[in-house]
Amino acid sequence: MRDPALSGFAEVVEPFRVMDILARAQAAERSGRDIIHLEVGEPDFPTPPAVIAAGRAALAEGDTRYTPAHGTQALREALSADYRRRHGAEVDPERIVITAGASAAILLALAAGVNPGEEVLLPDPGYACNRQFVAARGATPVGLSVQAEHAFQPTAESIAAAWGANTRAVLLGSPANPTGTCLSRDRLAAIVETVRKRGGLVIMDEIYAQIVFDTPEPSAAAGFPDVVVINSFSKYFAMTGWRLGWMVVPEAWVDPVRRLAQNLFVAPGTVAQAAALAAFAPETEALLQSQVQELKARRDVLLDALPRLGLEVQARPEGAFYVWTDCRAHGVDSEALCARILDETGVALTPGTDFSPTRGRDYVRIAYTQSESRLREALERLQTVFARG
Amino acid sequence: MRDPALSGFAEVVEPFRVMDILARAQAAERSGRDIIHLEVGEPDFPTPPAVIAAGRAALAEGDTRYTPAHGTQALREALSADYRRRHGAEVDPERIVITAGASAAILLALAAGVNPGEEVLLPDPGYACNRQFVAARGATPVGLSVQAEHAFQPTAESIAAAWGANTRAVLLGSPANPTGTCLSRDRLAAIVETVRKRGGLVIMDEIYAQIVFDTPEPSAAAGFPDVVVINSFSKYFAMTGWRLGWMVVPEAWVDPVRRLAQNLFVAPGTVAQAAALAAFAPETEALLQSQVQELKARRDVLLDALPRLGLEVQARPEGAFYVWTDCRAHGVDSEALCARILDETGVALTPGTDFSPTRGRDYVRIAYTQSESRLREALERLQTVFARG
Repeated sequence: MRDPALSGFAEVVEPFRVMDILARAQAAERSGRDIIHLEVGEPDFPTPPAVIAAGRAALAEGDTRYTPAHGTQALREALSADYRRRHGAEVDPERIVITAGASAAILLALAAGVNPGEEVLLPDPGYACNRQFVAARGATPVGLSVQAEHAFQPTAESIAAAWGANTRAVLLGSPANPTGTCLSRDRLAAIVETVRKRGGLVIMDEIYAQIVFDTPEPSAAAGFPDVVVINSFSKYFAMTGWRLGWMVVPEAWVDPVRRLAQNLFVAPGTVAQAAALAAFAPETEALLQSQVQELKARRDVLLDALPRLGLEVQARPEGAFYVWTDCRAHGVDSEALCARILDETGVALTPGTDFSPTRGRDYVRIAYTQSESRLREALERLQTVFARG
Repeated sequence: MRDPALSGFAEVVEPFRVMDILARAQAAERSGRDIIHLEVGEPDFPTPPAVIAAGRAALAEGDTRYTPAHGTQALREALSADYRRRHGAEVDPERIVITAGASAAILLALAAGVNPGEEVLLPDPGYACNRQFVAARGATPVGLSVQAEHAFQPTAESIAAAWGANTRAVLLGSPANPTGTCLSRDRLAAIVETVRKRGGLVIMDEIYAQIVFDTPEPSAAAGFPDVVVINSFSKYFAMTGWRLGWMVVPEAWVDPVRRLAQNLFVAPGTVAQAAALAAFAPETEALLQSQVQELKARRDVLLDALPRLGLEVQARPEGAFYVWTDCRAHGVDSEALCARILDETGVALTPGTDFSPTRGRDYVRIAYTQSESRLREALERLQTVFARG
């Protein structure tokens, strides 16, 4: 008897290198070393106290049964109000679908809008999982090379050039992971127009949209009713382990996406939905905004220091909590460099190979999910090891 | 500007009729009618108090960050111990993958074991969503007609006859939804042997496996290490809204499935995992077993009464909380019959069309998720309306 064969997809699905780095970092920690974790994309801030309290209250009330597949009316209305306040966007609560994290939202968007065998354009570098979401749908991920001079974001021209007979959709991110760069409103409008002409679909991942430092652009939900917008409570609201996200879908998609959500996920978590209602209170918003300011200060520390360490930042990160640095000055590929840095300094970074199959060996991602003082210590350690050569 | 086109799958995905019935029943309730809900497959028991308390404690401790993609070590070990105690099965915790409900487990199993374009055999009648899980993978669901004389379960012969060049897997359920019938150990062994010979995959949905009344069979995890076993905290543990399930995968699948889980779901819910640890304490197990006895008593009430109401039960339900009844004696199709029963008596039942595209008009599913006294009242109301003819 042999174990049953894996699908072609499962045979080749790649692990995150960041998880290998994390495992090695944790092993080093167990042996007593002090590790500074700048590898994992999880905010260091705890879930806001008001959200925790609301979750505990929901549990005390026994609020543990299925909600509607597309989420509670109360949470969809709260998100609609938040789009109005934060982005000046009118988003009908009926167009909002609550999901088990942005992951489930992307799976739903692809099930709803892409057929097996079709192609989906994905910026390279980009979030590694996106390739796997597309493959899980039986569709084909196609890399769309993005350049530093365009803030590592696609242009309408690059999308037009890459669009083939079998292309169905493009999945964008702003601010993007791993670069932290944003897509400008003008560029987005040109891209949407280009895709519309081809009868295609724009999916916009905005899970970092509330973490923008300089000149925030409104959500794509403002003004582009045919764009599928993905978001999450994980990052800005610091609710990673709650597994709660949402999507805004075009009017004509509302009923089919609800049916898909019923079938594929039954419903998102009940307690998480009840707890998330507390995330929009003014005190919590003030707390979250102070965290955004803290992230901005950390970014500025990195932007100041990294060039002197031979880690070039080619496009200014405007949001999220990542810096994408060119490490070629060090003369080794990013996996070797990250391994060496971890071994010699206890600073854990992610090699770019998680994010770019083509150029990942030249780049390193730094997640600034540690306090400013720890970040400064990490930079000092890097200075020491690089000074030794 | 037109809204972007839906995928072929999204164009045709069907709603649950049970949701229409539920919506109508709720509208009737709002207008003041007393409705007896026997339509939705959600246990009426609340989440056990010890689980609620453990969830609240986890929140108080700020236990809200990502866990490993395949779940916490503690919960996987607790499940392994439960397989030993409940089923006499040795299941290595490393082979257990915690998921966001059985839904995510089935999505993962299909991503891991089935290629787009391949066929998956599904018993008819069966759980409606299974067709949609298969279609979401870009694969083709193929109905496998099951007969009352075989307890509405497939036989090895029926699977051998249905197996084609492009068939990759069969998805079984025991106890099954909507019939409540079990697959005997001998029959399972013959099916596994048949599928092994063809190099195929058996996926066994056991989300009701702990709710069996007469002669419980052990889990397929006992003795069939190449079968993918799906389970959930939703039903026996009454944790529907927590969205927590798990799967047992073949040894050779462990690493690829963890990688898939990382990519497609990041991780299952953190608080739900912490809370579920309390589900295995002896007091909670005693409470849950008393609930199984209560379900058994309700089933017996139905089995006694339904034949006199012209609702024939052709195969004895041995578990779950469903009875699948042949309603042809009433001379109307099940959708019309359920609509009439709801309108005239306030008893909400599910037409069989949710579960069988071929024979659903002849059957009605009754979910006995109400107290015995409410169930008796529902039967009296049915008696009254049927007596009027």
